[in-house]
Amino acid sequence: MIDPATPRLYAYHRALREAAASGVHTITSERLAARLGDAISSTQIRKDLAALGALGRRGQGYAINPLVEQLAWVLGLGHEWSIAIAGFGYLGHALATFIASRESRFRITAIFDRSPGVIGQDWNGLRVADITTLEEHVQSAGCNIGVIAVPADAAEAIAQRMASAGIRAILNFAPATLRVREPVLVRNIDLAGELSMLTHWLTAADAQAQERA
Amino acid sequence: MIDPATPRLYAYHRALREAAASGVHTITSERLAARLGDAISSTQIRKDLAALGALGRRGQGYAINPLVEQLAWVLGLGHEWSIAIAGFGYLGHALATFIASRESRFRITAIFDRSPGVIGQDWNGLRVADITTLEEHVQSAGCNIGVIAVPADAAEAIAQRMASAGIRAILNFAPATLRVREPVLVRNIDLAGELSMLTHWLTAADAQAQERA
Repeated sequence: MIDPATPRLYAYHRALREAAASGVHTITSERLAARLGDAISSTQIRKDLAALGALGRRGQGYAINPLVEQLAWVLGLGHEWSIAIAGFGYLGHALATFIASRESRFRITAIFDRSPGVIGQDWNGLRVADITTLEEHVQSAGCNIGVIAVPADAAEAIAQRMASAGIRAILNFAPATLRVREPVLVRNIDLAGELSMLTHWLTAADAQAQERA
Repeated sequence: MIDPATPRLYAYHRALREAAASGVHTITSERLAARLGDAISSTQIRKDLAALGALGRRGQGYAINPLVEQLAWVLGLGHEWSIAIAGFGYLGHALATFIASRESRFRITAIFDRSPGVIGQDWNGLRVADITTLEEHVQSAGCNIGVIAVPADAAEAIAQRMASAGIRAILNFAPATLRVREPVLVRNIDLAGELSMLTHWLTAADAQAQERA
C-alpha cells in the first residue's frame, strides 16, 4: 500500500523546487513549513527528511538542490513513465493536457475511447484508439500507468483489462469502486466524494452556528 | 477540519444507493464491505453507522432506504449548493460537465475565465464571465462553493477573492498551496501528486523485486 508519508514527500519536492526557482539555496524546516501553508509541522518535516537520511544544519537548514534530487529519485520522478488514458471526453482531455504540460517524465502513449466520433481524433500526434484494442496498444507502447476517465459502469472492466495487459498502477476518476487488487495499485479520485466532504463540513458548521445562536 | 469518517460515509452512501438501485432492501455490514471492495472492514462500518445512531438487526442488517436518507442529510446532500468555477479550460469544462451530470443538488451558477476567447461562451445557458467580475457574480448568485481550475500562479489570488466574496468551501485543482484558512475550507486535488504516488509505489516495488532477485 501507499506509504502515508508519500503525499508529504511530494509536497516537499514541489515546495523545494519553487524555492529553488526563486533563487534560494538553503531552507530551514520552519521556512519549508511556511511555504507549505503550515499544513505540515516543521517537526514532521525534519522527521520525514531524516528518514531519507537528509539532515539539516542548525541555523542554516537543508541544501535545496541535493534534497530535490533525492526526493525526485524516491518519488520515482527519475524514470520515464508511459501512460494510457481510457475515456477521452472532457475529463480525459483535461487530464491528458494537464499531465503533458506538467511533467516531462510522464508521457501519454495511448488514448482510448469507445465513441466513433472520438476514435481517430488526433491529440498531439497521438491517435485516439478504439477501446476494443486496449490490450495491443498498451502492450506495444509499454504503458505502466493507466488513467480511467470513463463512465462508472465501464470502469471495472477497463481496469481489469488494463491490469491483464500489464499496467501496474491506475488512477481512477470514475465514481466506482474497482476490484483490481495488488500487485496493481489503484488510486481513486472521487470528485463527487470530495464535493460531499465540502457540503458535509458546511452543513456541520451551519448546525453549530445555529446552536450558538 | 474534515472529519476523517466523512470519506467513508460518502462511500457508504454511494454503495447503499447502488444496492437500492439493484432492488435490495436490507444489507449486512459484511455485504456492504464487499460492495466497497473490502477497502473498509465490516467492524469499521458498524462503528461508523452506530455513531450515526443506525443499528443493524442481527442476521438481517440495515434497512437501506432510511440509512441512505440519513447519510444524505449528514453529508449535506439535502441542500442545494451553488457552485462557482474559476478557469474554464479543459479541466474547468470537465468539472462543470461532471458536476452537472452527477448531482442535481450541485448547481453551477457562475463560471469565470480570464481569456477573451473563453469569456462570453455559453455553457448550458450560463455565460462564462470575466474573472475580473468574480465578486459581483459570486454575490449575486449566492455561490457557497468554489472550484479552482486555473494555473498555479493565479490560484492564490482567486481563492482569496472567492473567500472575500462569501465562498465558504473551495475545491482546488491548481498545483499550488493556498493560504486561505478557516472559516473557509479548502480541499486540494493534486493530480501531479497523485501520479507521483503511483510512480513512487512502482519504483519501490521494482527495488524490492531487484533485492529478491
